[in-house]
Amino acid sequence: MLIEWFTPSVQHVFELVGIFFFAISGALLGVRKNFDVFGMAVLAEATALGGGVFRDLVIGAVPPIAFTDLGYFFTPLIATLIVFFLHPEVERITGAVGVFDAAGLGLFCVMGTMKAHDHGLGLTSSVTLGLVTAVGGGVLRDVLAHEVPSLLRWDRDLYAVPAIVGASIAALLIHYDALTGATSALAATTAFIVRLLAMRFGWRAPRAWNRRSTAAEEV
Amino acid sequence: MLIEWFTPSVQHVFELVGIFFFAISGALLGVRKNFDVFGMAVLAEATALGGGVFRDLVIGAVPPIAFTDLGYFFTPLIATLIVFFLHPEVERITGAVGVFDAAGLGLFCVMGTMKAHDHGLGLTSSVTLGLVTAVGGGVLRDVLAHEVPSLLRWDRDLYAVPAIVGASIAALLIHYDALTGATSALAATTAFIVRLLAMRFGWRAPRAWNRRSTAAEEV
Amino acid sequence: MLIEWFTPSVQHVFELVGIFFFAISGALLGVRKNFDVFGMAVLAEATALGGGVFRDLVIGAVPPIAFTDLGYFFTPLIATLIVFFLHPEVERITGAVGVFDAAGLGLFCVMGTMKAHDHGLGLTSSVTLGLVTAVGGGVLRDVLAHEVPSLLRWDRDLYAVPAIVGASIAALLIHYDALTGATSALAATTAFIVRLLAMRFGWRAPRAWNRRSTAAEEV
Repeated sequence: MLIEWFTPSVQHVFELVGIFFFAISGALLGVRKNFDVFGMAVLAEATALGGGVFRDLVIGAVPPIAFTDLGYFFTPLIATLIVFFLHPEVERITGAVGVFDAAGLGLFCVMGTMKAHDHGLGLTSSVTLGLVTAVGGGVLRDVLAHEVPSLLRWDRDLYAVPAIVGASIAALLIHYDALTGATSALAATTAFIVRLLAMRFGWRAPRAWNRRSTAAEEV
Repeated sequence: MLIEWFTPSVQHVFELVGIFFFAISGALLGVRKNFDVFGMAVLAEATALGGGVFRDLVIGAVPPIAFTDLGYFFTPLIATLIVFFLHPEVERITGAVGVFDAAGLGLFCVMGTMKAHDHGLGLTSSVTLGLVTAVGGGVLRDVLAHEVPSLLRWDRDLYAVPAIVGASIAALLIHYDALTGATSALAATTAFIVRLLAMRFGWRAPRAWNRRSTAAEEV
Repeated sequence: MLIEWFTPSVQHVFELVGIFFFAISGALLGVRKNFDVFGMAVLAEATALGGGVFRDLVIGAVPPIAFTDLGYFFTPLIATLIVFFLHPEVERITGAVGVFDAAGLGLFCVMGTMKAHDHGLGLTSSVTLGLVTAVGGGVLRDVLAHEVPSLLRWDRDLYAVPAIVGASIAALLIHYDALTGATSALAATTAFIVRLLAMRFGWRAPRAWNRRSTAAEEV
């Protein structure tokens, strides 16, 4: 089992940290949308667990780990309580939240790829599921909150690309039988750094060429 | 099988009643959104069956019962036809619809919890899935109809809390080996009454403390 | 296996063609919504594969074929690239796209019905899943793009009805043991033609009768 290259307990701590910071972003959006504390909790859970639950349903790993490991369930509730009582302070460190969200992105894209491959999917599909694990929760968060998904918007810094980079490196490591705790940490770190650079320098992806025919629709 | 504490046929009738009233709320939203009769039917099916289908996918009970028991499929269609031909009359009894929707909420949160536990989930996860069974269809209804989910909004009466109460009582009954037809009916009735009280007295959940930083965004 | 009445390779080519044209409609919506190239790709994949992935999850065919057959994954990316570089030209042939989308609709509703029945579902549920296979991707596309689902809107030409017609014919053929490559092609063609006629003559479904009580909400 590739996924055991990480020491299980170390891996578990990393996952909970990633879940925690994804959940913070969900709960903060709940505050901005003027939702009540239950709405905040729903967004926190959906952001933190949505991508992983979809991955587990696709690979047939039911019930999904989010429903069997209580840490997965309670961590977003803790994040919700923190935002509920301290959200001006949390908002003040939004930059820091972005950094930790990037760390979650890096960890989830690599772990999602490894778990999908462990369940017998091919390398390309594993990369896809690694990407979905990393970005799916954020898309679900935005859909539930009635927002245009941040992932799709042109005017947001690159988010899918760092996850694709990390998942692809993990897939290459699997292909060349070079996946160890150290190399998978390297893949996650690379995704993390690419995301930080995208945020720092405002990297964006291009829109369709020759968008003349839709010019009237741009605001 | 805990779920057999209810006489199967009595349980089935209750479920179809719950499905019927959830479907009414979906079809009525379709009328308000100016959808055609097929849009009304899609919303009715999604509202009535969405939570249960998600629960069944998560616990691995495939195909979900909504796809194997024809009563589950046709009941929302009947609700759609009634709303299609008689919607001013149905709107006039919206208060009554709210009461029956509350009954559906009570039944679904308890039955969802029991079914999840029957499939081997822990008590906390079973409560979560009981909640999802009860509220998931309404969230899907609002997402499909391009509305902010009613469940998340601050200015709506408590909806998640009654379901959490009912699911938690069911879980406690399971834990103390005290689940019978009578006690599970009591759990469902408690959730039902809490929801009615929330509607009657306008109970709402708090929003985040110190929302100064977002004051500008409130309308 | 009913599904083998189609020569596998011919069936596969048809499916990829259907996926391609569904993906074109997703990528074009991405351009209209001003998304970047990754947003276009996400919409293309969701439109082309969403209905089939949901069907496969429901019938327990995991991992879904979209994650095991690379052609399913890469075809939408090719459609995305074509729209990215040539979208004014693609827009110019929107009528043609509508025709091919109708072809995809016809193929998917029949194939979805057959696959669901092959996995043991009853005829009614198989028709439902055939419909979901055909229209689910478009609904997901619109939800992700933050639009009112085109399927539900009153002011769009019939879309669900052709799929229901095609899926029902396929179910009748199964019931009377008359499903062959030729007859299933006939079912798909019938759905295709009904959709073309709906587009040509602006066929629409009725809204609820006596919508007086909601008159104020119409725009």
